[in-house]
Amino acid sequence: MTAIDINCDMGESFGNWTMGRDGEVMPYITSANIAGGYHAGDPHVMRETVELAAEHDVGIGIHPGLPDKMGFGRRTMDATPEEVRDYVVYQLGALLAFAKRHGASVQHVKPHGAMYSMLSESEAHCRAVMEGILEVDPDLIYLATDMNIYEVAQEYDELDAVFEGYVDLDYNPDRTLIVEKSVEPKDPELVADRVVSIASRGEVEAVDGTTIDVPASSICIHGDGPNAVELLESIHERLEAEEIELARLDELV
Amino acid sequence: MTAIDINCDMGESFGNWTMGRDGEVMPYITSANIAGGYHAGDPHVMRETVELAAEHDVGIGIHPGLPDKMGFGRRTMDATPEEVRDYVVYQLGALLAFAKRHGASVQHVKPHGAMYSMLSESEAHCRAVMEGILEVDPDLIYLATDMNIYEVAQEYDELDAVFEGYVDLDYNPDRTLIVEKSVEPKDPELVADRVVSIASRGEVEAVDGTTIDVPASSICIHGDGPNAVELLESIHERLEAEEIELARLDELV
Amino acid sequence: MTAIDINCDMGESFGNWTMGRDGEVMPYITSANIAGGYHAGDPHVMRETVELAAEHDVGIGIHPGLPDKMGFGRRTMDATPEEVRDYVVYQLGALLAFAKRHGASVQHVKPHGAMYSMLSESEAHCRAVMEGILEVDPDLIYLATDMNIYEVAQEYDELDAVFEGYVDLDYNPDRTLIVEKSVEPKDPELVADRVVSIASRGEVEAVDGTTIDVPASSICIHGDGPNAVELLESIHERLEAEEIELARLDELV
Amino acid sequence: MTAIDINCDMGESFGNWTMGRDGEVMPYITSANIAGGYHAGDPHVMRETVELAAEHDVGIGIHPGLPDKMGFGRRTMDATPEEVRDYVVYQLGALLAFAKRHGASVQHVKPHGAMYSMLSESEAHCRAVMEGILEVDPDLIYLATDMNIYEVAQEYDELDAVFEGYVDLDYNPDRTLIVEKSVEPKDPELVADRVVSIASRGEVEAVDGTTIDVPASSICIHGDGPNAVELLESIHERLEAEEIELARLDELV
Repeated sequence: MTAIDINCDMGESFGNWTMGRDGEVMPYITSANIAGGYHAGDPHVMRETVELAAEHDVGIGIHPGLPDKMGFGRRTMDATPEEVRDYVVYQLGALLAFAKRHGASVQHVKPHGAMYSMLSESEAHCRAVMEGILEVDPDLIYLATDMNIYEVAQEYDELDAVFEGYVDLDYNPDRTLIVEKSVEPKDPELVADRVVSIASRGEVEAVDGTTIDVPASSICIHGDGPNAVELLESIHERLEAEEIELARLDELV
Repeated sequence: MTAIDINCDMGESFGNWTMGRDGEVMPYITSANIAGGYHAGDPHVMRETVELAAEHDVGIGIHPGLPDKMGFGRRTMDATPEEVRDYVVYQLGALLAFAKRHGASVQHVKPHGAMYSMLSESEAHCRAVMEGILEVDPDLIYLATDMNIYEVAQEYDELDAVFEGYVDLDYNPDRTLIVEKSVEPKDPELVADRVVSIASRGEVEAVDGTTIDVPASSICIHGDGPNAVELLESIHERLEAEEIELARLDELV
Repeated sequence: MTAIDINCDMGESFGNWTMGRDGEVMPYITSANIAGGYHAGDPHVMRETVELAAEHDVGIGIHPGLPDKMGFGRRTMDATPEEVRDYVVYQLGALLAFAKRHGASVQHVKPHGAMYSMLSESEAHCRAVMEGILEVDPDLIYLATDMNIYEVAQEYDELDAVFEGYVDLDYNPDRTLIVEKSVEPKDPELVADRVVSIASRGEVEAVDGTTIDVPASSICIHGDGPNAVELLESIHERLEAEEIELARLDELV
Repeated sequence: MTAIDINCDMGESFGNWTMGRDGEVMPYITSANIAGGYHAGDPHVMRETVELAAEHDVGIGIHPGLPDKMGFGRRTMDATPEEVRDYVVYQLGALLAFAKRHGASVQHVKPHGAMYSMLSESEAHCRAVMEGILEVDPDLIYLATDMNIYEVAQEYDELDAVFEGYVDLDYNPDRTLIVEKSVEPKDPELVADRVVSIASRGEVEAVDGTTIDVPASSICIHGDGPNAVELLESIHERLEAEEIELARLDELV
């Protein structure tokens, strides 16, 4: 039976500032990328997000960011591979500690924003992070947003690598994503079509009408999109109709 | 055979700012209290400090602080028990991740500065932290600076609690410590005498000449004292002469 | 003619996190308390908030907080009077720089959250802050939330001190405020009644029905209240009907 | 009479961490570049550094950095021109407030580390910063480390721009500086020779023996160099012997 994971960034509130609708979105996803306190999140938010994920049997992943709250981790920094590796290890460990309360472990690692761009552009950074992850726990899954990173991750035998696809953004024919200035509601039917297309055939239609390969075992949904819950409901209905199973990353690798 | 642990705060450098003489002190101690990135330390400093401890077979402990780098974690804050617990869990987890590289685990927890004062003054805070520690790893040792905290820690059966004594500061007759404004070099003979007195008889002479109980299995040394290394050499010589063994905390509980 | 100022906390967004509805509220107020980047706000938010205030001819004040973004400046810290003074001076200066672009100066100082509590409880802290303000600009107005602080401020001849009243919270008979756990919409008529009562008679009805003195020249409105704009509209209508003028703090002293 | 300014980075301590030997160096310099709390410094350090500068009649400048204490402001960040401008305005304002206590103003602006590199590489960033400075105070002097920046600064008529030269580092023939991995003591005679050469002829010998133009009115000394005070003494003696006057930046423009 075909199966797919749905992942979403979570735990991006900070102190008194709220971001996202974690409580509404968590019931629909299978893997949560939890901010580690560098670009967003804090220890209290991490604890609550881990608890919410555990309630819904959602796989827990660290979503490590650069130490730049003012820029929400979206600005590349001229940090060394070793520095970035240590930022990942630090945030991963912090999440591990909160996971233990639930007898759980951390399922996956998915770098955030500018950190993921840096790994995509510099193989040295990418390898340093992979090696840092392996030092902590070789059972972790690397959730790759980008083919450059995915290919490097696959070279590490101990590490499971999963590629993710996007359905609430359009793809260019070269498999880069079209990031929007202002976020508009998306068509629930179109989004569900794309999930099915990726899950069953590993491909999706790009913005120019061509068909491109998206060999993804996980779908990323933007939980702060204006109609994110509606999209998730539509996806769930369609997956059921098509007999495609929803499964956490660690059930897929 | 009588045995005692020597612990010291370590890893309190931050970015480009250096603090302490970790490289010189590490060979003489058995347990290192490593800053967790809140009051001091950063991921890179943590990695290097863990590595240095591993080279010298020194037990690794988290030295969690309040989120107040500007005040070096020395200013009490009106944070809730749950907030303080989560700060400990977060920093403990981060250290765990760095320890794993050396196949090691975290040996102990010793809160820093104002955080320890808060635990001493509020049983609710103290219990919240103990319970947070137990959630992460029931094999951890709580290294107690203060009898209030030591007594609470002992109520938790799963948790090993160790009391620590000071030899480079003077005690008041009520077992509080006399903190100095300016730190002067200490007499190596006096300091060694005190270590032997605590290790073999569980007592030490207070500033007024009376003898007080200090039921400590670990001695804390201030690594940034002006003659810290000299004091440590003197202690080592005396312990050898007196046939008192040096042992890590986890060998003593 | 009777006149009163309406002040509101502004500029409490931070990086990607939004707080408050500054754009909607600014047209209705006469003085804005702008976060200085310690408990909330950042340089970009400060610039935009100053610009918005200038567009509406609203007086600009610094709303300095403790260096505690994770706690939103709401946790008292054991900082010295000199430390708190320097936090105020620093944030005040930063705002001054943004004000200069509009040929404006900073009108007033109103400490935020736990900083204001600390000034209320410790005269030494209160005096240190007053003296720090006077060093920067003796034309500044101190906007006092609390009678303890107001009385100290009045002792400084060069400094203008203004007391503020609250209308969207209930007073206890001892003039302390009843802070609510969950913020409910307020009755626009009741709120407007209170503004008129304070502006024209310097008194308001406490929660037990007694009348208490509130010698305020400024009314503080919580801009993030669920019906803040509705309350402000009701206040404006009533003030017009009662021929009470709205005026900035610097027109009142 | 020929005259030259000597500038030095100051106030780079942070909380409990000390950096540099400000007290020893301040008597020998004429302009101090004071960290603004982003890459280094804090409000208390700023106050003390301004006070120390005032005692020695040293001109006060802001040394603004990127918001990256962990990286000491030495890592370029993909921040927008507007963001960098606002970081400069914020830190400049903060220093202004501390200067006012001494009836002083801020004399100059000299961006730190990676911020200066960003201005050198991007004219848009450079112009945004110049315009931000002009908004705050058109009497400020821009102290330019780099010819790219110097040329842009000179296009702004209201702004005085001064170029600075280095004497404790070697120049490449293309006027770039050779930054050393480990900082060695420098030859006091050579360093004094270079100061005289720059002050009297606007040129210096590069590492390959060729003579290059360094049209500097200010000399930058690294105050944390291993023999910084010895170098400064040597420079002072030589300037006296050569009848070259030492003067603050604001006496030179």
